[in-house]
Amino acid sequence: MALSEDSLISRLKGAHTRDRRVRRSVRLGIGDDAALMRTRVGYEVILTCDWFLEGSHFIRDKHPADSVGWKCLARALSDIAAMGGSPKCFLLNLALPVTCTGRWLDEFLVGLHRAARKFECPLVGGDTTCSRHILVGITVVGEIAKDRAVLRSGARPGDLLFVSGSLGQAELGLAELRAIKSRPKSLSLAKSPAARLNAALQRHLYPEPRLALGRWLAHNRLATAMMDLSDGLSTDLPRLCSASRTGAEVHADKILCPAAPTHRSSSARSIDRLRLSLHGGDDYELLFTVSPAHRTRIPASFHGVPLTQIGQTTRSREIVLSLPGDHKKLLRPGGWDPFR
Amino acid sequence: MALSEDSLISRLKGAHTRDRRVRRSVRLGIGDDAALMRTRVGYEVILTCDWFLEGSHFIRDKHPADSVGWKCLARALSDIAAMGGSPKCFLLNLALPVTCTGRWLDEFLVGLHRAARKFECPLVGGDTTCSRHILVGITVVGEIAKDRAVLRSGARPGDLLFVSGSLGQAELGLAELRAIKSRPKSLSLAKSPAARLNAALQRHLYPEPRLALGRWLAHNRLATAMMDLSDGLSTDLPRLCSASRTGAEVHADKILCPAAPTHRSSSARSIDRLRLSLHGGDDYELLFTVSPAHRTRIPASFHGVPLTQIGQTTRSREIVLSLPGDHKKLLRPGGWDPFR
Repeated sequence: MALSEDSLISRLKGAHTRDRRVRRSVRLGIGDDAALMRTRVGYEVILTCDWFLEGSHFIRDKHPADSVGWKCLARALSDIAAMGGSPKCFLLNLALPVTCTGRWLDEFLVGLHRAARKFECPLVGGDTTCSRHILVGITVVGEIAKDRAVLRSGARPGDLLFVSGSLGQAELGLAELRAIKSRPKSLSLAKSPAARLNAALQRHLYPEPRLALGRWLAHNRLATAMMDLSDGLSTDLPRLCSASRTGAEVHADKILCPAAPTHRSSSARSIDRLRLSLHGGDDYELLFTVSPAHRTRIPASFHGVPLTQIGQTTRSREIVLSLPGDHKKLLRPGGWDPFR
Repeated sequence: MALSEDSLISRLKGAHTRDRRVRRSVRLGIGDDAALMRTRVGYEVILTCDWFLEGSHFIRDKHPADSVGWKCLARALSDIAAMGGSPKCFLLNLALPVTCTGRWLDEFLVGLHRAARKFECPLVGGDTTCSRHILVGITVVGEIAKDRAVLRSGARPGDLLFVSGSLGQAELGLAELRAIKSRPKSLSLAKSPAARLNAALQRHLYPEPRLALGRWLAHNRLATAMMDLSDGLSTDLPRLCSASRTGAEVHADKILCPAAPTHRSSSARSIDRLRLSLHGGDDYELLFTVSPAHRTRIPASFHGVPLTQIGQTTRSREIVLSLPGDHKKLLRPGGWDPFR
């Protein structure tokens, strides 16, 4: 079958318009020079874009194609969550080797479509081309009520530092994926998905952006600053602190990555739990600060996701890790940096 | 010097915030999880994104880095022009080999910055990472008054078919660039740029999106359908016709690519002028249709850019090329398709 850019665009279009609910905010989707979006009075537009590249962000022989589709959108949505906003629509830049335009693309679209439906964020446009490696660029457009967005810069010294979920699990999942010989079956193609993937692998392959939590914190003005954890706590926390002109103290015992109980791989077992929690990337949990006056308004969990106070911001600009026995040491960025 | 993602982001930020006019529409730019944009009541948001990849869209050893910076933004802006809109801001996905983070990046930013200033479209966010090849993804956000956007689908049989500027020059420029042994000096680094680049090379390296023309046509409701010519007339015209459910007849003598008078390269001279005009890509001119009732309202040129009626749309769904001597033949797509 002869492949053309136009036929590829038709396939993208088909997958995303068939059964998605018609969204009033999208006036014009795929197929013209650009998409048109309607905005609501009293709202601001949130804009974010992310790379998802073969070799850097995923491995073609290891990551199921539907996980690539799911994750490229989920991680961009995580930036919308980190502002406290709601997604409206997204654009997809997709470059593929010709050999990936068959089954690989079909599975990729299943995962992408599943995430788009779940998070109510339809595909409205993009660009497709041919390349040696699989290259994905995602732009998500969201919205938030005027002046409700939670920035990285709003923390004050003495604010309480919280994270959602648990840290380091996705990195553990990556270690497991690397240890597996063959590529795991696509989650969406397995009959009982939960049974087939352990928690860490699930977290690495199919992360869940914390959209509801972000919205709730922003709407109720509970978070003074917020960001999502994509590169690891030790790399991301200094970014929030730098923007807020504070330091922070983090309690090591509050962030320990829970060991997966059914987990038996010796290579993964040997990885230090604290190191995973401090430096592990790809968690897509929310890191946020709360004024001490609002401490009691933060529940122990939100929609089943634990919320843990892991420390507080400080006047001193240092990032300090406090260890058992009142030991303290400076925390240096050790997370993901593509140029390191 | 140790390079990190954060230091790279600072350089992008520096270049675009120093001397750009503060734009009321951008509430939050580079540096947080996402950017925030204000919209005007009564306007719709235009969204478009484009690849610009080493090897596919430019050649590292041939294209000056500042041309890569200029062109990646200019061609995405051309999609905003094609809707009749105005640019508001853009996001940049940039992946670079470490060897390109010095001088190459500096020159790239000069070109990008120059285009951003000229077309009043500030950089507000994006993602940076490391890769073997230079990869650029650009998302432009624009705006247009409600219901004024000109789609591809609005042409009716019998509408007059117009193009701005001249077709095929950019393709001629590419042929020249390929014939040149060394990489031409960056335009922005030359003292008298116009003197050093002939028209075709200029058109290929530094295309001008037809924003003012697009806006004028949309604002005055003169164009019934519009798109920009990026892949060549023979490939793009069928897209407009298909969306409008029409065919078209194109007069060969109206679209002939003007030969550059000072042009002496024999390799380029041998390229057929008609073929260039029909199939040459990268023109970024506007293709638009006008109701016969408005024929006299289309001037011969707009802000110095010629507007030429090259044919008309037809009820028959075929795309026909009419040649001198009342010869007619079907026009088959022969422009740029990355998968061909």
